[in-house]
Amino acid sequence: MIILNIGDELTYGQVVNTNASFMCAQFTAAGFPVEEVVVIGDNAAAIVDAVAAAFQKTDILVISGGLGPTKDDITKQQICHYFDVPLVENAEVLCQIEALLANRGVAMSEINRLQAQIPQGAIAMPNYLGTAPGLWLEQHNKLLIALPGVPFEMKALLIEEVLPRLKARFLHDGHNEHIVHKVIQTTGIPESTLSDKLESWEMALPPTIALAYLPRPGIVRLRLTGQSCDLAQLEADMNCQIEKLTQLLGEHIFSYENNQIEEVVAALLLRKEPATLACAESCTGGYLSHLITSVPGSSRYFKGSIVSYSNEIKRNILNVRELNLKKHGAVSEYTVNDMAINTLGLFETDYSIAVSGIAGPDGGTPEKPVGTVWIAVATPTRIVTREFHFGDFGRDRVIQSSAIAALNMLRLELLRDL
Amino acid sequence: MIILNIGDELTYGQVVNTNASFMCAQFTAAGFPVEEVVVIGDNAAAIVDAVAAAFQKTDILVISGGLGPTKDDITKQQICHYFDVPLVENAEVLCQIEALLANRGVAMSEINRLQAQIPQGAIAMPNYLGTAPGLWLEQHNKLLIALPGVPFEMKALLIEEVLPRLKARFLHDGHNEHIVHKVIQTTGIPESTLSDKLESWEMALPPTIALAYLPRPGIVRLRLTGQSCDLAQLEADMNCQIEKLTQLLGEHIFSYENNQIEEVVAALLLRKEPATLACAESCTGGYLSHLITSVPGSSRYFKGSIVSYSNEIKRNILNVRELNLKKHGAVSEYTVNDMAINTLGLFETDYSIAVSGIAGPDGGTPEKPVGTVWIAVATPTRIVTREFHFGDFGRDRVIQSSAIAALNMLRLELLRDL
Repeated sequence: MIILNIGDELTYGQVVNTNASFMCAQFTAAGFPVEEVVVIGDNAAAIVDAVAAAFQKTDILVISGGLGPTKDDITKQQICHYFDVPLVENAEVLCQIEALLANRGVAMSEINRLQAQIPQGAIAMPNYLGTAPGLWLEQHNKLLIALPGVPFEMKALLIEEVLPRLKARFLHDGHNEHIVHKVIQTTGIPESTLSDKLESWEMALPPTIALAYLPRPGIVRLRLTGQSCDLAQLEADMNCQIEKLTQLLGEHIFSYENNQIEEVVAALLLRKEPATLACAESCTGGYLSHLITSVPGSSRYFKGSIVSYSNEIKRNILNVRELNLKKHGAVSEYTVNDMAINTLGLFETDYSIAVSGIAGPDGGTPEKPVGTVWIAVATPTRIVTREFHFGDFGRDRVIQSSAIAALNMLRLELLRDL
Repeated sequence: MIILNIGDELTYGQVVNTNASFMCAQFTAAGFPVEEVVVIGDNAAAIVDAVAAAFQKTDILVISGGLGPTKDDITKQQICHYFDVPLVENAEVLCQIEALLANRGVAMSEINRLQAQIPQGAIAMPNYLGTAPGLWLEQHNKLLIALPGVPFEMKALLIEEVLPRLKARFLHDGHNEHIVHKVIQTTGIPESTLSDKLESWEMALPPTIALAYLPRPGIVRLRLTGQSCDLAQLEADMNCQIEKLTQLLGEHIFSYENNQIEEVVAALLLRKEPATLACAESCTGGYLSHLITSVPGSSRYFKGSIVSYSNEIKRNILNVRELNLKKHGAVSEYTVNDMAINTLGLFETDYSIAVSGIAGPDGGTPEKPVGTVWIAVATPTRIVTREFHFGDFGRDRVIQSSAIAALNMLRLELLRDL
């Protein structure tokens, strides 16, 4: 399978291509590995060339983008050009567009009516979130699937229409070669240290299993990919290697799945329900709370936060002692201790996290350079505090690394309390 | 120019390819338009094939990924294979790696020493943030540039090494055809309404200027691309069209640059320095504060937030009246009014924003479905409140749309106060 994402906004670099990663993940998991992703602009000749080049290498091409109602959207016309078929109005699609617009209280315009035209011979896959239907077009053993580029429309169509149709069409008689992915996520250990620690284990991996390192701020994900015709043996080998990895890395591993550390923390807090959490954030400025509340159902344990972006707020709302601010500064063990303890009282929670640091680009000093961050975690019975140095690699990176480190400190304390 | 991003994590969809958008934006702005982005896995044959295919179409190929120290990184070997040259140790690179590791207090390992090997004939571009140098290799009028895949290393190398070298090498005698991009960012108006409003203006655009719509949650960006040999005339035409657009769209336009709405709000607040801001967030859970504090220097006007993720916190810390919570509920005009007014007092600020809504997936009712959000903005002299319906298109989307709408309400009030 090849994926073709179309849009000048992509080759100009004006938007990040999140569609590609979503599509790759979904198709890979469904048993349709992606050989290549190609990104081109809204250019008629480039579209036809890319479709032709893709069908030289693969039998299934999935396109996203350029199906919208505006004049710069030309994908549908170029598909017709490649397959040499006309556009024809589809009555069913027209009905769906009318219903969608009526629901939004919008009248049908000429532009919207054009959206009901699809290449002759194509099946229209209904889009309940927008006016551009998905297209499924098979000719001479080649399958072209076209989806709108708006991410939430593409996602809904892919999950509800494309995957079930692909499975029904191609997977009826099973595969020969099995591919199994396992992700092991680590935190609190840099990639090079991890690599040294795993060297002899990695050398001894069986030839059916490959390892890859996927670093991001604060986290290194290890991906094991197994490939074999004997699925049972492969699963057993993978589990045995993961067992060894667990012994080598211990509590640096926070997950054996493709989830986020805030989801792991959420599950630990729910095991202690009705345990509650609140935060006091300085340099992370709300990002830690955002990660926590990005988990559906987080209101069961999360009561809230104080973002204290000035010393005055640390003093007046969080009751940080003036003495500590003056003598040790806002970025210090003393201040985050006060923040964490008083957050417990203010929100009446069992757990709290406090973060204070220098995210940059300004505010660093020789003693406390940009990237210096203090984090405190308070539990029902104790408080632990740690200093971190995330370096001067950009404000975003310090904020992200701090929030991950804070969630990891809470995770370790929750594990200790189980 | 073609960009080739290499990594199984990309074709498996395990990470989002932010490198591609960064590279496209930088190269386009520097006068090197990107024709195509290709993404493939860590597969030796696929790498050699992709390099060969790219050099059929272009003279400059920029590769990222697969230069790391671990065994799954094979890009360097495949470059040698394609150009038929050996890997040789580079003394200068070795020194740089030694200095980098010493600075981190890490000893040189065998793995790190391998990083000093580069293809014969290549120039090593120093990487001060990691052990993999950038590579610049010219042969038979084809230029291959290889960069590490770790985003912050790639970015530093691209800005500090690649762009200056490209400009020195290719742009000495000027271009013939000029390409000018202008971005006009709108908010508070859906894409289809915008498209209807702009239809006759768009039809009358001169042939040298093209329009594209780039929607994202809460924001539609309009991109005008002008292409002509006469730069002065083109600039004049573009400015004239933007003038017309401004008359059509008025205060829906929040920026004529490629910046974020939080940066526009930041600039407006700084014009009123020492004006200050605080927030009270319920459904946005810290995301609004995160956007505000993602702007460097935001501590000059932002004092902090209360994330009140339970009614108890709304009552006890934000002093929302029990009467309002009981009679009208947490998601109501009355509650966000109380939240905004009391936030002014609690943080002693000139402005405040309060947000309360139902982000989903649970918590919706027939009267207040998922996506219902109330937002209040308090200024030194007034308070404005609005209800929004962002629909049930996913928790993330409701959170993002709410934060953008909140920033836009504050922007409009700040404009009124100028």
